[in-house]
Amino acid sequence: MIAILKQGTTPQQTQHLVNWLKNMNLDVHISEGAEVTVLGLIGDTSRVDMELLKSLEMVETVKRVSEPFKQANRKFHPKDTIVEVGHARIGGGYFAMIAGPCSVESEEQIIEVAQAVKEAGADILRGGAFKPRTSPYAFQGMKNEGIQLLLKAKEATGLPIVTEIMNISTLDLFADVDIIQVGARNMQNFDLLKELGKTKKPVLLKRGLANTLQELLMSAEYIMSEGNENVILCERGIRTFETYTRNTLDLSAVPVLHNLTHLPVVIDPSHATGKADLVAPMAFAATAAGADGIMVEVHNNPACALCDGAQSLTPPQFEELNRKVQQIREVIA
Amino acid sequence: MIAILKQGTTPQQTQHLVNWLKNMNLDVHISEGAEVTVLGLIGDTSRVDMELLKSLEMVETVKRVSEPFKQANRKFHPKDTIVEVGHARIGGGYFAMIAGPCSVESEEQIIEVAQAVKEAGADILRGGAFKPRTSPYAFQGMKNEGIQLLLKAKEATGLPIVTEIMNISTLDLFADVDIIQVGARNMQNFDLLKELGKTKKPVLLKRGLANTLQELLMSAEYIMSEGNENVILCERGIRTFETYTRNTLDLSAVPVLHNLTHLPVVIDPSHATGKADLVAPMAFAATAAGADGIMVEVHNNPACALCDGAQSLTPPQFEELNRKVQQIREVIA
Amino acid sequence: MIAILKQGTTPQQTQHLVNWLKNMNLDVHISEGAEVTVLGLIGDTSRVDMELLKSLEMVETVKRVSEPFKQANRKFHPKDTIVEVGHARIGGGYFAMIAGPCSVESEEQIIEVAQAVKEAGADILRGGAFKPRTSPYAFQGMKNEGIQLLLKAKEATGLPIVTEIMNISTLDLFADVDIIQVGARNMQNFDLLKELGKTKKPVLLKRGLANTLQELLMSAEYIMSEGNENVILCERGIRTFETYTRNTLDLSAVPVLHNLTHLPVVIDPSHATGKADLVAPMAFAATAAGADGIMVEVHNNPACALCDGAQSLTPPQFEELNRKVQQIREVIA
Amino acid sequence: MIAILKQGTTPQQTQHLVNWLKNMNLDVHISEGAEVTVLGLIGDTSRVDMELLKSLEMVETVKRVSEPFKQANRKFHPKDTIVEVGHARIGGGYFAMIAGPCSVESEEQIIEVAQAVKEAGADILRGGAFKPRTSPYAFQGMKNEGIQLLLKAKEATGLPIVTEIMNISTLDLFADVDIIQVGARNMQNFDLLKELGKTKKPVLLKRGLANTLQELLMSAEYIMSEGNENVILCERGIRTFETYTRNTLDLSAVPVLHNLTHLPVVIDPSHATGKADLVAPMAFAATAAGADGIMVEVHNNPACALCDGAQSLTPPQFEELNRKVQQIREVIA
Repeated sequence: MIAILKQGTTPQQTQHLVNWLKNMNLDVHISEGAEVTVLGLIGDTSRVDMELLKSLEMVETVKRVSEPFKQANRKFHPKDTIVEVGHARIGGGYFAMIAGPCSVESEEQIIEVAQAVKEAGADILRGGAFKPRTSPYAFQGMKNEGIQLLLKAKEATGLPIVTEIMNISTLDLFADVDIIQVGARNMQNFDLLKELGKTKKPVLLKRGLANTLQELLMSAEYIMSEGNENVILCERGIRTFETYTRNTLDLSAVPVLHNLTHLPVVIDPSHATGKADLVAPMAFAATAAGADGIMVEVHNNPACALCDGAQSLTPPQFEELNRKVQQIREVIA
Repeated sequence: MIAILKQGTTPQQTQHLVNWLKNMNLDVHISEGAEVTVLGLIGDTSRVDMELLKSLEMVETVKRVSEPFKQANRKFHPKDTIVEVGHARIGGGYFAMIAGPCSVESEEQIIEVAQAVKEAGADILRGGAFKPRTSPYAFQGMKNEGIQLLLKAKEATGLPIVTEIMNISTLDLFADVDIIQVGARNMQNFDLLKELGKTKKPVLLKRGLANTLQELLMSAEYIMSEGNENVILCERGIRTFETYTRNTLDLSAVPVLHNLTHLPVVIDPSHATGKADLVAPMAFAATAAGADGIMVEVHNNPACALCDGAQSLTPPQFEELNRKVQQIREVIA
Repeated sequence: MIAILKQGTTPQQTQHLVNWLKNMNLDVHISEGAEVTVLGLIGDTSRVDMELLKSLEMVETVKRVSEPFKQANRKFHPKDTIVEVGHARIGGGYFAMIAGPCSVESEEQIIEVAQAVKEAGADILRGGAFKPRTSPYAFQGMKNEGIQLLLKAKEATGLPIVTEIMNISTLDLFADVDIIQVGARNMQNFDLLKELGKTKKPVLLKRGLANTLQELLMSAEYIMSEGNENVILCERGIRTFETYTRNTLDLSAVPVLHNLTHLPVVIDPSHATGKADLVAPMAFAATAAGADGIMVEVHNNPACALCDGAQSLTPPQFEELNRKVQQIREVIA
Repeated sequence: MIAILKQGTTPQQTQHLVNWLKNMNLDVHISEGAEVTVLGLIGDTSRVDMELLKSLEMVETVKRVSEPFKQANRKFHPKDTIVEVGHARIGGGYFAMIAGPCSVESEEQIIEVAQAVKEAGADILRGGAFKPRTSPYAFQGMKNEGIQLLLKAKEATGLPIVTEIMNISTLDLFADVDIIQVGARNMQNFDLLKELGKTKKPVLLKRGLANTLQELLMSAEYIMSEGNENVILCERGIRTFETYTRNTLDLSAVPVLHNLTHLPVVIDPSHATGKADLVAPMAFAATAAGADGIMVEVHNNPACALCDGAQSLTPPQFEELNRKVQQIREVIA
């Protein structure tokens, strides 16, 4: 870590700061230039509160030289992490197509969709049982019952399943779930992350609506530092001024995360765009950018004239999408 | 709720949608204009998933006419809510000055600061025991011990205390805490909000870094819908492209929230700006905008040359701030 | 256009508003529902100031049903616009690879790069002569001389050229330039747009850093409404809270713009990301999303150890990029 | 300027970079630490392209130590600039209340409003003659005629006037205008700024919707570097994810700019909020934050039932606002 001190800082002030830093078991290398004084902090700087340091009057700026994430860091773990669930693998050249309905609604629905997406090429089944909703009056999901229905669909099709957890007190319900999803709103629910770190269960960690990629990696680090290395990162759109799409899908996250970390990166174009006709182009783009998987909403209700055009695809649309995704993978391989 | 259908929607499609809406126990009033068809949805629309409705291909736009929050809504509860803790009152013309250190560090520290801010005019003592930190390697607060020290400071000074909860499993520790704070990162931790709603304890709910004012009110609604009406809203800066300040303090939140809700609104200029020299001007501005309280960081360490200039004020700076804040209150009263 | 009036609006207030709207030669269709009154405005609503209308106390919300852009609107012009320059075509299934250095620096440099990118498959040569710079003290480009050098490179290679205009008073210098670029900072320099609309010269219009896609289309409309239909839209990254990349490339702009307009859409991954190693993945992603062209920075300085790793590619890197871009085009065709 | 090189940079690469920097007439001070190499660049670094430097593969980060603005910099010009127009003064303890209609509509209107705001305490009259509009089909202002009417209002009341320029070719029309406004969309129209720098006319420079405070200062620097020191900065709201208000008024801009520059800072709460009932609280807040002036929209149309509630105030509302603004100024003086 480098701290640059403002011009006009007195030797006494500098000494105060250096002493304070040394008290944190850091070595401090002082370099006095013509215009500024630069302090190089050597040792375990992960405990240093950058925000506090930055806010000091004498400090011009602070810059971490080594990234604050360690276990997620590609520098210390150059080889791609491959997460395995059932027959599916994600990362390190393996690609997973994750598909299913937004919410589990009934046994019939989830089994039908599961069979349809399996035939169309899906590797993993998704479906919401616990649903985080902005309003306390909105449908909050089928909860425990929803998870039971997902497990029936898993049994019926052999597809591994991924579904969201909202509260660590429900962890027991997820015993047979293959991948536990942490939603965007809980990306910095640090106590939840720590508890998931104590399991060995793969975790699909979604980027928060206004969180930087470094913050996403720090949240992965919360899970990994407790011993669970099976973390899958997921970009699902960030909040910007543009209102035409529900969120702005940040696809540069794919190559950036691949540079910074060995963890697999999955893209969710359905939630990011909120419109069915944008899902396929964004899935193609995500694949071309090098994503390790795509997560899309698929419904299976031929009677539902409503659903067409919403953010969910029909199984035939999904099959077509999957076919081109695989072709793009070959091009960029 | 109003749904505007796209030009070219067939009568059959419209009928499908109307039937679907009626299945949710809504009355639907259809108005066919020259260019568009407008559906007026009458009844309890709080359960309607606006995002889903918007995402339908035939739907041009959806607009709530009645706000989705009810118990927090000034329309149904015109009188200001006044939250009482000890001798302090917030809202309805009552103003609370909340002050204290960022983190509780020792018994000596917290009691000294408590006495200093009390003398300088503070109504409530703040101090962090559980600290949400981006990094798992950073200091996470004194936790339970920190709460015990806050309670000693309360005993010593008579000041009510406010401190942050991160995990509902720790609720018992907060039995004698006067106001429980929900931090920005947990604003949409809905399960936590619901549990706090089952207590009668005042809750200080901080706006998330990228959450709209309506989302803040919906989170307040999660608490209130469980029976707890003692909610204090807190604006503490939002995330924007500007990097000079730590966050961008959105002071228009004060009059906007006062229009929309009867709940009190408090401003935290310390975290928003991250710089001590910006705290006072922003505290004055918040007061002039009509805030019901100000929450500032104050430290009390004469030996700490470091702390000057960080986001914390010294007790004399705080006393001067408080004096002008009270004068501004008189002007705008 | 639809205006929804607030509950409690008096008949007299409604009448005032209706009269005011009728004075703008609009027909007003009033629909009084149980909860709200909806006004349907029929006629040429493009002159109605939506911001003013929205700001009226009695108005709950205002929504355009017909988009405010007309000549750029795919509804009124379903067929893709194809812009032709020299042998290159952009749009309607034609794809253009635009490449060249950030700035024109010398005759030798620009001719070498032009030859290199031509051999590697470029269709159009880019190069900055007038450079918009945040600082008045920074290099502002070779200006007129830079344009002369671009014209020499055009002569030497046969490649059409694109370069940026900053001031309408320099228009004469662009007589032999094939495509005039309007930079992000001038996207809403309306007087410049109008003047370019009076020429027949193709205009490459870059999206502003904080402009919505609808605002981009309205700026295209400024050019088109003066008679120039040769407009190419360019997404080059928007400003968000994320600081890892220079800007956030919004690739959903490609399918969204293709839905809304018949104009071609080009992506600039070099400026959006600011890092050479992100250019190729983002170029592949843009192509997979359906872009009509890619605009990348290429330098040709074997001695310049510095340049490697900056946002510019070497000619061999560009050739490799181009090869895969063409393969992806085949997949999604 | 400090450049921090990545670990693993070879001595040869470092030497290349150092040579390149020395070619720009900079002295380079090399400090090799245990983890990183820090280059201190000494001399006139304003010409160094930070973006280019940052984008080099070997460079970890670049940080300016001296701000890139010079003439606007308080460090080199500690005394507040006071801009004088007629009897009004802005900055250095002087405060200006600027009021008037959004657009000039007729002689009667502008003279009536001018007289009303003068009586209510305004120091300067504002009014739009050239109106930047998102749509080419919207009313673009009365243009030259509007300026003539403003000059009549100036003659009738003695109030100095401020109005917006959009195109340097119209500069002659502004000969008798007291303050020329540069709108948010033209904040980085560098050629316009340079030309205004060649006059001695006071310029009110509005912050762009997505521009940082440093970029605002660099645009001021464009004007000042040509010889015109009469620059007034204006914050008028930035673009964020929040849609309840038209823009988000960033009031921390006031103390931040006062720290960084000697130029006066004015706040425009009318455009920032877009709602009349938010104008007064935000004007009070701006004053309490230390603004050197407030710019508000006032209309004077008793017959216009429409206008009430829009972003404009009536003269009595403005008078009341002005009274409290003056009282707040006394408190914070």
